[in-house]
Amino acid sequence: MTSIFQYNQPFRLESGVTLPGYHLAYTTHGKLNAARNNVVWIFHALTANANPMEWWPGLVGEGKFLDPQQYFIICVNKPGSPYGSISPLSVNPETGDAWYHDFPVFTIRDMVRTYQHLRSELGINSILIGLGGSTGGMQLLEWAIEEPELFENIVPIVTNAALSPWGIAFNASQRMAIEADGSWLERKPDAGQKGLAAARSIALLSYRHYNGYDITQARDKAFVPLQHNTLYAADNYQRYQGLKLVNRFNVISYYRLTQAMDSHDVGRDRNGLVAALNRITARSLVIGIDSDVLYPIHEQKFLHDHIRNSAFLNITSDFGHDGFLLEYDRIEKALRTFLEPHEGYGFGGWLKKA
Amino acid sequence: MTSIFQYNQPFRLESGVTLPGYHLAYTTHGKLNAARNNVVWIFHALTANANPMEWWPGLVGEGKFLDPQQYFIICVNKPGSPYGSISPLSVNPETGDAWYHDFPVFTIRDMVRTYQHLRSELGINSILIGLGGSTGGMQLLEWAIEEPELFENIVPIVTNAALSPWGIAFNASQRMAIEADGSWLERKPDAGQKGLAAARSIALLSYRHYNGYDITQARDKAFVPLQHNTLYAADNYQRYQGLKLVNRFNVISYYRLTQAMDSHDVGRDRNGLVAALNRITARSLVIGIDSDVLYPIHEQKFLHDHIRNSAFLNITSDFGHDGFLLEYDRIEKALRTFLEPHEGYGFGGWLKKA
Repeated sequence: MTSIFQYNQPFRLESGVTLPGYHLAYTTHGKLNAARNNVVWIFHALTANANPMEWWPGLVGEGKFLDPQQYFIICVNKPGSPYGSISPLSVNPETGDAWYHDFPVFTIRDMVRTYQHLRSELGINSILIGLGGSTGGMQLLEWAIEEPELFENIVPIVTNAALSPWGIAFNASQRMAIEADGSWLERKPDAGQKGLAAARSIALLSYRHYNGYDITQARDKAFVPLQHNTLYAADNYQRYQGLKLVNRFNVISYYRLTQAMDSHDVGRDRNGLVAALNRITARSLVIGIDSDVLYPIHEQKFLHDHIRNSAFLNITSDFGHDGFLLEYDRIEKALRTFLEPHEGYGFGGWLKKA
Repeated sequence: MTSIFQYNQPFRLESGVTLPGYHLAYTTHGKLNAARNNVVWIFHALTANANPMEWWPGLVGEGKFLDPQQYFIICVNKPGSPYGSISPLSVNPETGDAWYHDFPVFTIRDMVRTYQHLRSELGINSILIGLGGSTGGMQLLEWAIEEPELFENIVPIVTNAALSPWGIAFNASQRMAIEADGSWLERKPDAGQKGLAAARSIALLSYRHYNGYDITQARDKAFVPLQHNTLYAADNYQRYQGLKLVNRFNVISYYRLTQAMDSHDVGRDRNGLVAALNRITARSLVIGIDSDVLYPIHEQKFLHDHIRNSAFLNITSDFGHDGFLLEYDRIEKALRTFLEPHEGYGFGGWLKKA
């Protein structure tokens, strides 16, 4: 079920901008039980939407590990994204026109603060499991730090405590590609398509891995000497993926959401990363993927080292960062073990805290 | 000394295009000795020029390991590059106007074939040492396969036998960023600057490494909440590097040279990579850098495994691919040991062939 939450009071962003209000699109699957203790809150990644059954079909759905028969599963489209929540294509009530480039950055922390009002509205006072991969994991960590008592269990996946300079450099390159497409400044929904396609192509490099390209986009066996228009498989693939995103996303949303990623730093105004992570009280299962180029495994080890009540799983995969959307079996198995009745830190055979 | 070599006969490219001729800019340092056996031929990488004293100052120059007092050092600006050789900004004799976008792709193999005519002109029948890093190494390998007897020693550095699908995907992303800048199609020397800057920013990611950014572009300690125009150090750095290239390069050259990289496959029409590498008879020192994201170390191991007379050095460095321009001490020490009088495969303590 998709719903809209409308918040009609002034909302101040970290940037200092105050909005007259905002709205969030969210989906729920399953029912809140009488004890209100079966909530699973899922946070989506950069360009996904509020329906995890669509983008995490191996984990979420009837008969899957996260089954609506058992859990009340909620996922909110993050503000700034074009899938129903407030975004650059929404109407700015002060002008009566779409925001477009005037749309402000929602930091990861701002996003979480919008969710807090929705949570109150829904009468949710406890979240059994919070899950999020990539920028979804950033939101999860922010919230588990901001309201430690709220979460019983959290599962941050291929994410980090602060976006690295390397991650910022990837995002900057994408913004430069968007800016190179002068049409991105036009106030219309389909502006900046070539820039957005190039940005997606760059991002994809960071989501995948050398070996992944070797496996799926190998050089043509029968080589044709290069003509001006000879495209190799890997070149075609990048263009195809760029076009796919162009057909389902908006360039200003994309630009702002990369800025939101850049802002991610759980230690900001909290005496640094370690102090911030120490505030988390939830049982935590931190998952990383050994071939992740963008958020390398040591970033998840860092989370594990500084979250008090944490287990750690390193998944070996050729899929890189994108493995979090593909390695269902490994993730499901880990969740099952993690959520079984336990004593202390009995996380199966995984690395335990001393 | 910089010179121009003019070749005035028809020259057929791998693409099937026949040029009425071409010219090459090249520098020489030192003198060809009477025995004509002191030639050092250096091949430059993607955006460098024909003067290795400028871009390899730690290795080439008076008092350096590659000393013009001892060696006759030659380096040719590769065709397609804007540093003096035939390029998109050269005049097409058939039209009397600059080539611009009509400029054809010179494959790596085409480049080497232009050098062969220069070599004949100069009366060079033996090259004591050939050296090249990155796309410079590609040219070196092509030539050492094409004319095995020509080289006594070769030193391919952070290079490969064929550009990987991963490498092609990086190049495709850069071309997409250039294409996003519609101005790149204008027939003027300074067209497409924003696209070129974005392309350089992308390329830089592949030349560096997570740790390198962590060391040099760390997040600001005193964080300023994100404003629309707040740029982090790593973002500023990407823009600065993009601008630096724009001020010294041409967008069409850049585009064509990435296509040349894509074409690199020493096995083409030679029964594959292994058969091609087996043709090399020169003593070889293959150097890789363990943090190279673009040409990972296993690519240099592959070269080493299939070149008959090869030694291998893996340099541990946080500089990634760009380490070949920075790790002078390691490279010089390796060269010194490699070129010392030796018996058989006596390459110091390095990995030897079985």
